[in-house]
Formats: sequence, structure tokens, C-alpha cells
Amino acid sequence: MPVITLTTDFGLSDHYVGAMKGVILSVCLGARIVDITHGVTPYEISEAAFALAQSWRYFPPKTVHVVVVDPGVGSQRRAIAASVGGHYFVAPDNGVLSMVLTESGARVRTITNQKYFRHPVSQTFHGRDIFASVAGHLAAGVSFAKLGPAVADYARLSITQPVRTARRGWTGAVLKIDRFGNIITNFAITDFAQIEKQSFDCSIGLRVIDRLAKSYAEMSTGEAYVIAGSSGFLEISVNRGSAAKILGVGVGAPIELRLL
Amino acid sequence: MPVITLTTDFGLSDHYVGAMKGVILSVCLGARIVDITHGVTPYEISEAAFALAQSWRYFPPKTVHVVVVDPGVGSQRRAIAASVGGHYFVAPDNGVLSMVLTESGARVRTITNQKYFRHPVSQTFHGRDIFASVAGHLAAGVSFAKLGPAVADYARLSITQPVRTARRGWTGAVLKIDRFGNIITNFAITDFAQIEKQSFDCSIGLRVIDRLAKSYAEMSTGEAYVIAGSSGFLEISVNRGSAAKILGVGVGAPIELRLL
Amino acid sequence: MPVITLTTDFGLSDHYVGAMKGVILSVCLGARIVDITHGVTPYEISEAAFALAQSWRYFPPKTVHVVVVDPGVGSQRRAIAASVGGHYFVAPDNGVLSMVLTESGARVRTITNQKYFRHPVSQTFHGRDIFASVAGHLAAGVSFAKLGPAVADYARLSITQPVRTARRGWTGAVLKIDRFGNIITNFAITDFAQIEKQSFDCSIGLRVIDRLAKSYAEMSTGEAYVIAGSSGFLEISVNRGSAAKILGVGVGAPIELRLL
Repeated sequence: MPVITLTTDFGLSDHYVGAMKGVILSVCLGARIVDITHGVTPYEISEAAFALAQSWRYFPPKTVHVVVVDPGVGSQRRAIAASVGGHYFVAPDNGVLSMVLTESGARVRTITNQKYFRHPVSQTFHGRDIFASVAGHLAAGVSFAKLGPAVADYARLSITQPVRTARRGWTGAVLKIDRFGNIITNFAITDFAQIEKQSFDCSIGLRVIDRLAKSYAEMSTGEAYVIAGSSGFLEISVNRGSAAKILGVGVGAPIELRLL
Repeated sequence: MPVITLTTDFGLSDHYVGAMKGVILSVCLGARIVDITHGVTPYEISEAAFALAQSWRYFPPKTVHVVVVDPGVGSQRRAIAASVGGHYFVAPDNGVLSMVLTESGARVRTITNQKYFRHPVSQTFHGRDIFASVAGHLAAGVSFAKLGPAVADYARLSITQPVRTARRGWTGAVLKIDRFGNIITNFAITDFAQIEKQSFDCSIGLRVIDRLAKSYAEMSTGEAYVIAGSSGFLEISVNRGSAAKILGVGVGAPIELRLL
Repeated sequence: MPVITLTTDFGLSDHYVGAMKGVILSVCLGARIVDITHGVTPYEISEAAFALAQSWRYFPPKTVHVVVVDPGVGSQRRAIAASVGGHYFVAPDNGVLSMVLTESGARVRTITNQKYFRHPVSQTFHGRDIFASVAGHLAAGVSFAKLGPAVADYARLSITQPVRTARRGWTGAVLKIDRFGNIITNFAITDFAQIEKQSFDCSIGLRVIDRLAKSYAEMSTGEAYVIAGSSGFLEISVNRGSAAKILGVGVGAPIELRLL
């Protein structure tokens, strides 16, 4: 009962996702297809990388994860497949797997074996003719090694990490704004666990936040708090409100964290 | 071949729904996951309660229905599971199951057995770490009784019923506006079947509607009609137009029905 | 392992799609349900016809495709089923299957056998009570011939074809704008293959486009190009931009193609 996940910027109103699913089922009738999201902002590779990084490890071993955010479709950019932690990944070689390929033991191959493509291959829709088809074959039991030669020079996004700017100060950034307006930062909870025990201030937009909450419900109405998010990163949230709107920040905005 | 349905306010652009599905499949690889909707307005418990009420009974027996609209996540609010009419339900104890728990024979338990959680449990995403995981275990055959002790004091939404305000007059309310602008009222068709045979007027917004239609197609263009909706309630509709926009009403707006 | 696809204008925020899926699984527990799209503009039959035409053939044989864009629900319009190329189709008889029924060997029946309906049948939601239920029965192995009598007078949309307006000139139209703003025309690639080898100009909106690209990546920024799309039609695209917005055109807009 192989599982295949899909993460794309195709949206849900066109036929693209449906065509991909048809190809997958034609190659591997038993595949169980799960959407991570098709709502990635068009061409936003790092947004897709984050969505994938936040979900792949919850799936069972041998799941095949397909990611198609692919502004370079039809150009010389390569297609790659990866084997990481017992899961498989299929994507354009544009950095969209960056947050997965930092895992130890990651193995990467370029997908060159056209035997596993759907033909003829459209130059504008490799999601259907290459990625869905190859994922179906992997799910059906084709060996990872058959897809093409191993490579080490795959594309990597520079994943923003907080930078130390003082003995007890760091500059980080906003990784993601979610549907609720929660601001997901790039401060990993495990790296900044001490804020649970000591005073801090966190400057973002024009505001300084110095309170930590354990849950949304304990936040005073309308006030922004730092909270240990489900993403593994510190988040900034407002109970039943959009922290992003209240603070007026978006993805990439800088954040200063200072331990007092 | 267990079936699990999902109803949340998570939207489809973030990774939250994908992470829940991964957890479910990791617990119960054979589960077949069906989305009811993830488009519930954030925090709108009664909207989710309605979506669930309108769909659960069409599914096969033993289906596990997961509902996560959960503004109190991480607080003292309990998690509950219910067994109703041969189906199972898993949700926060905030009233979101109210329209299901009015069924006769409903049995409710608090979910306290942490054996069925995913650990560590995030304080902001019980959808992933508690509800999806528990649903997976139920689907995999774990007995309902093992989840925790039976309770009777679960939260109930006050579900608005029409109130009799005259010998032949009632005041009701708008339950739901759907994508097409149909206005779903809280007048149950079975309680007001007589409008098929006698004159009535129905005041809503600034308008009085006194015509009943059997189908959209028989409605004159641009005119609002009362119609026996697929929801089991009287609805107010405009053929190929939005009754809600034309009448300028939203959820909760009052409706006066008078039999003449 | 039967596959059923769904194409509707129900959107994803209401309970309608969930109710249909419940009915399908109650009739055919083993069905694997795949969404093509539920984002068809309300009542836009030709938009649904296009989405279906672009995806059905990628699915495995015996797939049952359900299409519900049904402004005439509850009226005298018939329900039909079709058998085309080894696939089955279930839809209202309003032309929504037009692009499929042009295939050779298409056989069509009216669905009159109420044994395969869910009862009682709502007059506003045949998607749930007729189409989903009939699709479930087909997927479960009910013979196509049992649904009702064969018909030949089913509704047909007039599918716009380019019209020859000069010895080397044609007037066509915009079939579809996709999420990325790509303009899908009704010029079939196979009919106009010569533009790969000779000069042309293509007038659309207030612009004349005379360049052909093989991929998005080779397009100069901000410039519109003609490209052989994955849809089988010539498309007009802008690399990382919306051709539809830049050219100010929508579905139905005329296009003049001239071979020089």
C-alpha cells in the first residue's frame, strides 16, 4: 500500500493536480495519494521546501514525496530523486528539497532514465510527465538506483539561520506566516530553550515582545506572545488574531532576540 | 478498509492537514482519508458542527470523523471521542460535536489515554499529536472504551431552533451561507412541511418571500424563493445568483416565517 | 480497486463534496476517490468540460468520472452516463461531457434506473443522491447497460474551433486562463505545427506576439510568447508572470493567428 504525497504550486482550480494523480494511478494502481498542499505561492521554492520539511517525517517509511514548484521546467535544470530516512523524494533540482537533504544519510540521484517518464514529455508540465510518473514507478517498486546516476552537486537553498550579533543577541527572520497569522521564525526551539527560564525581548516590526505563552488560550486578548510552535521553531502569535497583521510583518522580516 | 474523515479550519495552503494525514497513515496504514472541509472559518465551531452534521451519516459504518476547530488547544479543555450510530468521532470538547451528540444512543468519553497520542505533544497542534493519532488507532481497531472514561458533561453549543412567536408565526435564523449564496435556515423541512400546501410569508433582511420552488430551474431570474434544501432545512435561493448577497444577510440573521 | 474522479463547482468550504464522498464509499467501500477540481466557477459548464477533457485519459481504464456542474438540477434535464475509451462518465445532460463524447466509440445512456439512486432524492443535490450513488454502483461492478436506455440526442456544447478567415489566417479564442495566468487557446498544436518552422503573428488584446518559446525559462522577462502547452493547444505565456493580466484578456477573447 504505497503512499505518495504531493506538494505543488498548481492550486486546486485547474486540471493539473488531477492529471498528475491520473498518471500516478496509471503507473501504480495501488498508490494512495495524499496532498500536502497545492497552495504554494507560484514559483516560491522556499515555501514549498518548508511545507515539505514540516510534514514528510510524519508519513510511514517508503512514502514517496513529490514536490513540483518548478519555474525552470523545460530548461536545463535537472530532475532529482532522493532517499532520506527511508523515504523517497522526487523534485526539480532547484533547491526545493534543501530542508530534507540536510538530514544525514541523504542520497541523491539525477533522474535520467526516460523509461520511467510518460511520453511524449511536455516541456511545460514535467509534474505530469516526469515527476508523477517516476513517483508512480518508485511506489510500484522500481529501485531508486535505476532512476539515474548519483550526484552530489544538487541545488541548495541558503536556509536562513539566526546570526549571533551580540554575546546574548541574535538576528533571525520570519520563515512562514500561516493561515491564522502565526509568525513562524527561524529560531529553533531546541537552540533557544533557555527563553523558557529567563527574561528576553524579541523585536519584530515596531514591537518588542517579552512574554512567552504555553498555549494560545493563556494569551491576553490582542497581545502578541512568543510560543514554542508545533513547527519546532519559536512562533509569535496572538490568540484568535493574526500576529502577522497586527505586527505588520511578512516572510523574510528580521527579528532580534535578546536574552536579558 | 477503515475510513477517516477530516473537518478543520486549517485551510489548504499550510502543512497542517498534510502532517495530520501522515500521522494517521503512520498509525493505520490502511486508513482511507476523506476531507469533509478544511475551509471552516478560523475558530468557528458552529460552522464546523454544521459541516459535520451534514455529511457524517452518508459515510459507511465505523467511519472515524475527526473535527479540529480548536481555539482552546493547549488549555484545560478536554479531548473527547464519541460513538454515535455506529460511527466514531474525535474532537476537542468545545461543542463542535453538538449536532451529532443529540442523536439517541450517543456515548462520549474523554480521551485521556496518552498511549494513543503522538509524543511529544505540541501545545499548539493537538490535531496532529492527539486527534489524528487517536483517530488512526480507532481506525486500526483500538476499542473505543480504551480511550478514557465515559463522560456526560461534555460541551454543548446552544443550537438555535425556531421560536414560536405567534399562533402561526416563528422566528428562526440563518444557519449557513453556502458557496452559491444559498441561505440555509434553521427551519427543519419536516417541521414546516405545511408550507408546500398553504400560503406563507417569510421575512428576511428587508424582503418578504412568499413563493416556494421545487427546483432552482423553475425560479424566475433574480427572484428569491423558499425551497426544501438538501440539508433538511428550508433554504432561500436565487437561480444562478447569490440569495445572500441579494438579500444582504449573513449567518445568524433573523427570519420570520408566517403561515397565512 | 476502482477509481472515481470528481469534478464540480461545489468549492471546498461547504459539506457538499464530503457528502458525495460518503455516499460513494457507502455504495462501494473500495472506491478510491480522486478530486480533479471542485473549483469550477459556479454554473460554468464549459470550464468543467475542459478540466475533464484535460485529465480523464491519464487515469487507468475503468475509472468512473463524475462531473457535477448542474444549474438545471431538479428540472427536466436528464442524467446521463457514458462509456468512452474504457472509462465511464456520469453527469447531468447539459453538455458538460461534450469534449469527451467526441471520441469515437462513445456510448451514452440516460440514467433512469432509480434502483441506483440514494433515496429520497433531493431536488437540489443530485450530485449526492444520483451522480455519486450511480458512480459508486458502476465502480462496484453494476453493468453500464443497467443504468437506463441508450440515447443519441444528448446535449452538446458548441466547442469553439478556430475559423479560417484568410488563406493563411484563423480566428480562434481563449479556452482557459490557468492559475499562473497562462492563456490556453483553442488552436490545437497538431493543427498548427507549422508555426515551429515559419514566421507568424498572433494578435490578442492589443498586442501582437510573434515569438515562439520551447520553455518558460527561455522567455525574456515580461515578454509574452506562444508556446506548445501541455494541454495540446497553443498557449500564450509570460515567464513568472500572468500573460492574462499583462494582455488584459479572459476566456472567450478572440485571437487572430496569421502565418507569414
